[in-house]
Amino acid sequence: MSKTEAETTETNKRKLSVTDLAFEKQGGLLPVIAQDESTGAVLMLAYANLEAVKKTQESGFAHYWSRSRNALWKKGESSGHLQKIVEVLVDCDEDTLLYKVQQSGAACHTGEPTCFFRKLPTNINGK
Amino acid sequence: MSKTEAETTETNKRKLSVTDLAFEKQGGLLPVIAQDESTGAVLMLAYANLEAVKKTQESGFAHYWSRSRNALWKKGESSGHLQKIVEVLVDCDEDTLLYKVQQSGAACHTGEPTCFFRKLPTNINGK
Repeated sequence: MSKTEAETTETNKRKLSVTDLAFEKQGGLLPVIAQDESTGAVLMLAYANLEAVKKTQESGFAHYWSRSRNALWKKGESSGHLQKIVEVLVDCDEDTLLYKVQQSGAACHTGEPTCFFRKLPTNINGK
Repeated sequence: MSKTEAETTETNKRKLSVTDLAFEKQGGLLPVIAQDESTGAVLMLAYANLEAVKKTQESGFAHYWSRSRNALWKKGESSGHLQKIVEVLVDCDEDTLLYKVQQSGAACHTGEPTCFFRKLPTNINGK
């Protein structure tokens, strides 16, 4: 959130394209949040390079860059747990994406519907 | 998602604590997704170090690490747009957090309710 308000307002007026995305900030990758469009559940966080974003735009299915395999990754290509894109949103700094998706099957490789299925205890409300 | 299923299942049985979090993967910082607990809206993505996570657990208000200011950051400390923690969730790889919050005022510094207020065009459905 380092831009001035004037710069941000100017950016907001323009139609965004992939060339606006700040891939250079994190070595060519942007974090991407996947959210189930119907339930609102946050499903997972992964990363995308320019190629993955373009493939997502063109195909209508979520693509990421696998940092462990160092390869383009179409989510669900082997498991069948595809993510059909409803819309792709960009944050105010153009350095994070939000894929709103229709999720087929479980989003998480553990079989859970979402990767966020465990809590970290806090000192509030006895939780 | 590099763990074996057996390892993940073993991890799932244990109660999580901050010492389980994989800060070392990304130079001491984890990405944190903030989600409005009542509307389900994804509000922002920021980063947290161990200190920020501990402050969040102890205080019940979202804390992050500001990469631009290189400082601990209590969200809303100057703007009043605090994020009261409802729960903190951990993903399957322990390398991303999800803060479910009650957001006061706008989450985005632009004044928008969420940082994700612009679309990236896709080739699907004429959007």
